[in-house]
Amino acid sequence: MTDAWVLNPDRALPAGELRPIAKEIYSATAGLPLVSMHGHVDAAVLAEDAPFPDPAQLLVVPDHYLVRMVVSQGGATLPQMGVHPVSGAGSDAGVETDARAIWRRFCENWHLFRGTPTRYWLEHELVEVFGVTRRPSAETADAIYDELTATLARPDFRPRALFERFGLEILATTDPATADLAHHRALAADGWGERVVPTFRPDPLLHVDRPDWRTQLDALSEAAGTDAHDYDGYLAALRRRRRAFVEAGARATDHGHLLADTTELDAAEAGRIFRAALAGEVSPAEAQAFSGHMLFQMARMSTEDGLVMQLHPGSLRDHDRGLAATFGQDKGYDIPVATEYTRALRPVLEAFGHHPSFRFVVFTLDETSFSRELAPLAGVYPAMRLGAPWWFLDSPDGMRRFREAITETAGFYNTSGFVDDTRAYASIPARHDLARRIDAGYLARLVAEHRMELDEAVETAVDLAYHLPKAAYPAPAPATV
Amino acid sequence: MTDAWVLNPDRALPAGELRPIAKEIYSATAGLPLVSMHGHVDAAVLAEDAPFPDPAQLLVVPDHYLVRMVVSQGGATLPQMGVHPVSGAGSDAGVETDARAIWRRFCENWHLFRGTPTRYWLEHELVEVFGVTRRPSAETADAIYDELTATLARPDFRPRALFERFGLEILATTDPATADLAHHRALAADGWGERVVPTFRPDPLLHVDRPDWRTQLDALSEAAGTDAHDYDGYLAALRRRRRAFVEAGARATDHGHLLADTTELDAAEAGRIFRAALAGEVSPAEAQAFSGHMLFQMARMSTEDGLVMQLHPGSLRDHDRGLAATFGQDKGYDIPVATEYTRALRPVLEAFGHHPSFRFVVFTLDETSFSRELAPLAGVYPAMRLGAPWWFLDSPDGMRRFREAITETAGFYNTSGFVDDTRAYASIPARHDLARRIDAGYLARLVAEHRMELDEAVETAVDLAYHLPKAAYPAPAPATV
Amino acid sequence: MTDAWVLNPDRALPAGELRPIAKEIYSATAGLPLVSMHGHVDAAVLAEDAPFPDPAQLLVVPDHYLVRMVVSQGGATLPQMGVHPVSGAGSDAGVETDARAIWRRFCENWHLFRGTPTRYWLEHELVEVFGVTRRPSAETADAIYDELTATLARPDFRPRALFERFGLEILATTDPATADLAHHRALAADGWGERVVPTFRPDPLLHVDRPDWRTQLDALSEAAGTDAHDYDGYLAALRRRRRAFVEAGARATDHGHLLADTTELDAAEAGRIFRAALAGEVSPAEAQAFSGHMLFQMARMSTEDGLVMQLHPGSLRDHDRGLAATFGQDKGYDIPVATEYTRALRPVLEAFGHHPSFRFVVFTLDETSFSRELAPLAGVYPAMRLGAPWWFLDSPDGMRRFREAITETAGFYNTSGFVDDTRAYASIPARHDLARRIDAGYLARLVAEHRMELDEAVETAVDLAYHLPKAAYPAPAPATV
Repeated sequence: MTDAWVLNPDRALPAGELRPIAKEIYSATAGLPLVSMHGHVDAAVLAEDAPFPDPAQLLVVPDHYLVRMVVSQGGATLPQMGVHPVSGAGSDAGVETDARAIWRRFCENWHLFRGTPTRYWLEHELVEVFGVTRRPSAETADAIYDELTATLARPDFRPRALFERFGLEILATTDPATADLAHHRALAADGWGERVVPTFRPDPLLHVDRPDWRTQLDALSEAAGTDAHDYDGYLAALRRRRRAFVEAGARATDHGHLLADTTELDAAEAGRIFRAALAGEVSPAEAQAFSGHMLFQMARMSTEDGLVMQLHPGSLRDHDRGLAATFGQDKGYDIPVATEYTRALRPVLEAFGHHPSFRFVVFTLDETSFSRELAPLAGVYPAMRLGAPWWFLDSPDGMRRFREAITETAGFYNTSGFVDDTRAYASIPARHDLARRIDAGYLARLVAEHRMELDEAVETAVDLAYHLPKAAYPAPAPATV
Repeated sequence: MTDAWVLNPDRALPAGELRPIAKEIYSATAGLPLVSMHGHVDAAVLAEDAPFPDPAQLLVVPDHYLVRMVVSQGGATLPQMGVHPVSGAGSDAGVETDARAIWRRFCENWHLFRGTPTRYWLEHELVEVFGVTRRPSAETADAIYDELTATLARPDFRPRALFERFGLEILATTDPATADLAHHRALAADGWGERVVPTFRPDPLLHVDRPDWRTQLDALSEAAGTDAHDYDGYLAALRRRRRAFVEAGARATDHGHLLADTTELDAAEAGRIFRAALAGEVSPAEAQAFSGHMLFQMARMSTEDGLVMQLHPGSLRDHDRGLAATFGQDKGYDIPVATEYTRALRPVLEAFGHHPSFRFVVFTLDETSFSRELAPLAGVYPAMRLGAPWWFLDSPDGMRRFREAITETAGFYNTSGFVDDTRAYASIPARHDLARRIDAGYLARLVAEHRMELDEAVETAVDLAYHLPKAAYPAPAPATV
Repeated sequence: MTDAWVLNPDRALPAGELRPIAKEIYSATAGLPLVSMHGHVDAAVLAEDAPFPDPAQLLVVPDHYLVRMVVSQGGATLPQMGVHPVSGAGSDAGVETDARAIWRRFCENWHLFRGTPTRYWLEHELVEVFGVTRRPSAETADAIYDELTATLARPDFRPRALFERFGLEILATTDPATADLAHHRALAADGWGERVVPTFRPDPLLHVDRPDWRTQLDALSEAAGTDAHDYDGYLAALRRRRRAFVEAGARATDHGHLLADTTELDAAEAGRIFRAALAGEVSPAEAQAFSGHMLFQMARMSTEDGLVMQLHPGSLRDHDRGLAATFGQDKGYDIPVATEYTRALRPVLEAFGHHPSFRFVVFTLDETSFSRELAPLAGVYPAMRLGAPWWFLDSPDGMRRFREAITETAGFYNTSGFVDDTRAYASIPARHDLARRIDAGYLARLVAEHRMELDEAVETAVDLAYHLPKAAYPAPAPATV
């Protein structure tokens, strides 16, 4: 294919008799603002608004989907993709420092991405956002690199300019519970406080067997201005930090746990495990129980301060522990495991599932739970919304299977609408666009099968793209602040 | 949409090039009689043949799919949907007693049902059965209510008249093992004994840790005319009651268990647990083991008396125990759990899987077992038939996934054909109609892909809709009675 | 349907607007040679090149898909399908010895196969390979039998002639670790050594609680020429046998385990369990742990000798133990169970997942692991390839679901391409043909949805059908031999 590269306007819409219906539905959502309530873009990017450094640092290195695929085929090792060993774990000698070389490795492996959402997103980014006119390949790598480098130097490609051009209405970052939120304060001072909001992520503080847990407690004490080294102080410090996040504009908390367990312990037992952890004498089972207990506490605090609670369970972090030891936490490949929800969420749902100020958005990497557990739960408990397909399932067929598996039990209105999840800033519009196309295709089938009227489908599509995410992540009510 | 409400004759058939084929197949089944071998309509409805009380009591309150959806969005609480607290658990003050108000709440929330089978069934009921011409909405609620009220007062809308009009050939009710079956005797006296048959459901007697178990034993002793308070007497009483059901026309037993386990205990151990339960000293594990043991006994008794054995496992009853305590058993939301079949059914299948008088129909709420466990088992053991998609899976896409997942291993002829499962009497024709349309669509694809001839597809569709359910639930052979 | 039986050239391709695209893609793969790297055809068939005995022995008896289906409907018992009791377990009186009678039972039950891959394969075999012109039925059974009998007597229907006609480039057999490989030597002497290669299958030696384990150790000692009755000798003997297989042209090992567990034990513990097993005092848990330990050892040996490691876990063998006792091992129906991979494969992947000489092809019967575990693992570890859909999943919709579930995470190039798995020699071309059609249909959808260009789709289809299986099963590098 040597002709100029343009994207087909009907891409990712169903073929045949569904296409005209899908196009009509998609046309109602294509231009809506982006509500991006869960992501991992660093607030500094928008606070500082500096030009992006180079194409590799913008498009390749922060995208773990992309790096994994190149590694999987032996196309490159982590150091060859620019990943450094952590201090003391190895030499930097083999680490690629030439951004152009990293970019070339990606372009040479373009065929590996056939059929993946990474391919769809990158096409959208390269063509629609950056105006690239050549398909990536070994031959075109350098020319595209030069073209992108020139583009990134332009002021209209700085982060805030792109924010406007992307049509972003609001962007949530993810921030440690101990964060000083200085970048968010700077954004607020610039009048961007409503547009870029923090999210409270306390994971390292809730997993008491992590090696850095006591360091984290020190940081929590410092950040909260109260001693978090006993169980009651720890709860009080978490409450204070949540309040600080609310004051900084946060809408939500976020929790990455291996299990979805939310079983509350009695306070004495929780305190005992806390002290054992401080003494370095906690067992894995105790640490697991404590983390489930703390999810219950987080839910209770959400009923107090109005922060939406997001749960992302079921990823076994750092599957290859040797790699993680060399290259640092979360570099050792994360792999999903089967995840149980019905029994695991029962404590929180029995306690707060009908609470008027509790909002609970639950995600999964285990699609077997869609029809069996999550749709039945979200389909009855008023507090619960089923989150959008996450990570490996945030893909054309993954999103289609999600709608097919959950709509018949939970309907559309017990879901969160589209929620992206990325540290790849330039991919955000592509992700929303793809979701809108897939939902249009699913709705078009319902219309074509006379299971829904076209006007209902259009209204539903707009809700999924825009109104439902806004409704799922409301600002905490002033009364609770 | 303000024009008069008519249903498209091609609804729920696939679009495009499959539609004409699907229509031809569907036309062969659309008018077939309804064989309804598993349901929860009260026999009194047909024995008494009284007019239905009001639209809410007919269409809304008994339909838990419908009530759950309204509750899930905070559209109403259970009391606002007409559900009363059990005696001593709370005041009736907040309970809605105005049927029209309940009806309005449903109509105002009509959009929540988009994409759900409830919507399909209700459209069919309102338009095809009751002749309603307005779509439900806040504006039309009262007019539809009045229209329905007038219709329900007509003699041709009484239960028996509808039975004829629905084309029901046979309807199975579900009855406690201790039931006196008086309504079935009354029906038999009216010449309806072959048309409305009971089903033997002994669950409360097999779960020895339920609070009402000893009360149930008293009732069993009374009903069977033999003392069921020791293990041997209990088995004898169950045998007698099964015989009484056979004599009253029953075709089947039905078993709702959390697990599919069918492991037989030795008689001494079973007797020991029975005595422990009588003494109120049974552990949950013992009660679970006893219930699996009793499934094995039920299978053995089926080989003796010819009652088809139905198993419906995998629903965690009363997920919200607080709600169940307030509003009564089964009002606390039932949620599925992952369910294992390969090892769980092994005892019964090794013992009776080739027995010429054993027929075992197995259902699931866990669609992961379709291709992995249930199709391979039903695809080899002669006694086993795979039941139709159940409950949350009794839906357009659920039924399609079922056929796609199981046909390639089990074929069509190791399935039960369509089996509905509802206490919503007026929805029975809609449910059969939807299943016939979905099967027509699946078969049409096989024809279009030249994996089957059209004449074979038509014959198969007729078998799935009519002959297979009749064959799966034969009357016990006279020899065994 | 009484007209002459011809197969539609577009069978198993998607209907409608995808068909012309799918036809164009399929036309690029339809004529490619067959690379058949995993199967159960006896090497003697090709070494001896004798005519096939009769239609039943060729097409019915060795096909367990087919026999199961007839049994499941009570169409015949195992003895009526020609299966003999093992010595001492029962009389041969009821065993059908008339091949024509077995053939008739199959033909009478032809309708049971509607919608199954067996039907597709058999149609292809009967029409395309053997030129049959009548559809199977009770009426046509004898005429087809006579027609096939005449055909099988012709020299151009002997095994080697069919090998040429099928376009087989290479065929792997499966051979016990203790096999003398005499048939493979004979084939090599005839110049067929590169075309028919053995596969090393040590299962009975790795499951130390099987009743024949000590007999197997005797055979291993004999075959390896070294005493395998202590743990070190056992490892040495396995290494020697692997080397003998490499020298006989083997490309791979194959492992059928209940679990995917690969946890290494320390050598002392492994030796202790080995001695306990020799003393007949091993527990099921110890035997299970030892078999996982031995998978780890097999992986290590693969890094030494270059044999590709194939893992086929998750089948519970001989579900009906009574049948297995009567008719012999593997006659008691095999049924899948849920299978965990993320934790189970971690030991091998942490140790060897980036090893340059390790190639690990993993299969599953549990499709829930496709998107959740296997695609994420194959999508990152360079050593791992995801095997083709296996057994119950080697079917039109099973293969489609596989591509839809895994491509978005693992892409195409982390899969093995098509791998058949059969003891039914004449079905091999049909199986490859069906896989090529299904992949063409999947790729056509990506093209129609503008997620891939047509030229990329054609290239990918050729890779899946031909280049990827060759690449997944390379001959061990001479350096390692």
